[in-house]
Amino acid sequence: MDVRALVFDVFGTVVDWRTGVTRDVRRLLGDAADAEAFAQAWRGRYVPSMDRVRRGERPWTNLDGLHRASLDELLAEFGFPDLPEDTRAELVLAWHRLDPWPDSVAGLTRLKRRHVIASLSNGNVALLVTMARHAGLPWDTVLSAELFRRYKPDAEVYLGAVELLGLAPDQVIMVAAHLDDLAAARACGLRTAYVHRPGEYGPDGPAPPRTDPEADLTVDSLTELAERLGA
Amino acid sequence: MDVRALVFDVFGTVVDWRTGVTRDVRRLLGDAADAEAFAQAWRGRYVPSMDRVRRGERPWTNLDGLHRASLDELLAEFGFPDLPEDTRAELVLAWHRLDPWPDSVAGLTRLKRRHVIASLSNGNVALLVTMARHAGLPWDTVLSAELFRRYKPDAEVYLGAVELLGLAPDQVIMVAAHLDDLAAARACGLRTAYVHRPGEYGPDGPAPPRTDPEADLTVDSLTELAERLGA
Repeated sequence: MDVRALVFDVFGTVVDWRTGVTRDVRRLLGDAADAEAFAQAWRGRYVPSMDRVRRGERPWTNLDGLHRASLDELLAEFGFPDLPEDTRAELVLAWHRLDPWPDSVAGLTRLKRRHVIASLSNGNVALLVTMARHAGLPWDTVLSAELFRRYKPDAEVYLGAVELLGLAPDQVIMVAAHLDDLAAARACGLRTAYVHRPGEYGPDGPAPPRTDPEADLTVDSLTELAERLGA
Repeated sequence: MDVRALVFDVFGTVVDWRTGVTRDVRRLLGDAADAEAFAQAWRGRYVPSMDRVRRGERPWTNLDGLHRASLDELLAEFGFPDLPEDTRAELVLAWHRLDPWPDSVAGLTRLKRRHVIASLSNGNVALLVTMARHAGLPWDTVLSAELFRRYKPDAEVYLGAVELLGLAPDQVIMVAAHLDDLAAARACGLRTAYVHRPGEYGPDGPAPPRTDPEADLTVDSLTELAERLGA
């Protein structure tokens, strides 16, 4: 493989959304809320909310906007219909302040030595920039679905990223902990690497598959990915 | 000022295009070429080539594409009509491998501590990513005219950058060594900082103005900018 760049899914792949969102929900809603359940429910609205944009049922809205709309629905359901505006705005920022998995910064730092590394997330640019500063993610640049006004797994996102990087699709590896993201990237001609993140679907959710047989690589961490690529 | 982010013009402001381009022209064309004159002439076609795109006389073409078209014209004029394709492609990459001014990396590193820092250049994303890796520019993210398919000084570039950063225009400082870039940013509501780079127009060109009286700040270096902003 003549790999020049790696692009990374972020939520779940590089950062631990569950712990971070749960922590801020607990801090801002207090013990009256089941913070774990709230975080899980919020994440549960993620794909459906993007799918409404992808199907054209909702005009382009960036992820902060979708997170806010989902939050407003959930606050009503969870018994917080009167939460003040500033607390709602602060809660949306929970998704900007997520912590990296223990291997993420070390793995990205090694990979960056010989490859271009960029996010390729459905998170908006401001979210990804704040997260990178918070978590110490050493991106060469932030790439986001927002740049193309399309959400993954739409092909425009993968092909748009490859074009901005000035590369051919097979010179770029898409790295993700989700099979659908990798399958869509492969359909666009990108290489793929699956990261097995065992807790992605929560204690009550399904276990993620141990490997992706269709991917070029399956790894347990970004440091293992660096190892496998000789970085 | 409640400044949250700084966005930077790159060619001339952060990196020394003249020395870098002259060096690669000399390396690739040899002593038969007047490398300084060639670099100056290539830069001289920069604004006119973008203006043709801005006026709609040419479809969107990124800066690598404009550099290549200008190069082909100049090679004919300078007596190299038969230069091979691979040498032409290599020459275009001279603009990706420019060195920083001596103060740039130290200044950006200090500014990054408390502010988001991003390029906001007419250079394309791939060019800016390669340059950042080559020159050690610690951008939080690369922002480029290419993301908006418009060239500075079109307002869409400044306003698009502000929107992607999730900020208000007056929370962002545009930093540049060129008055027209700063004037256009101010017209969009951004703050502005002028960097006096004495050699920008060459030994035979006009001296750049000592200050920009319309800018919020005038400095001689990015380290002075960090100092003035308390970073």
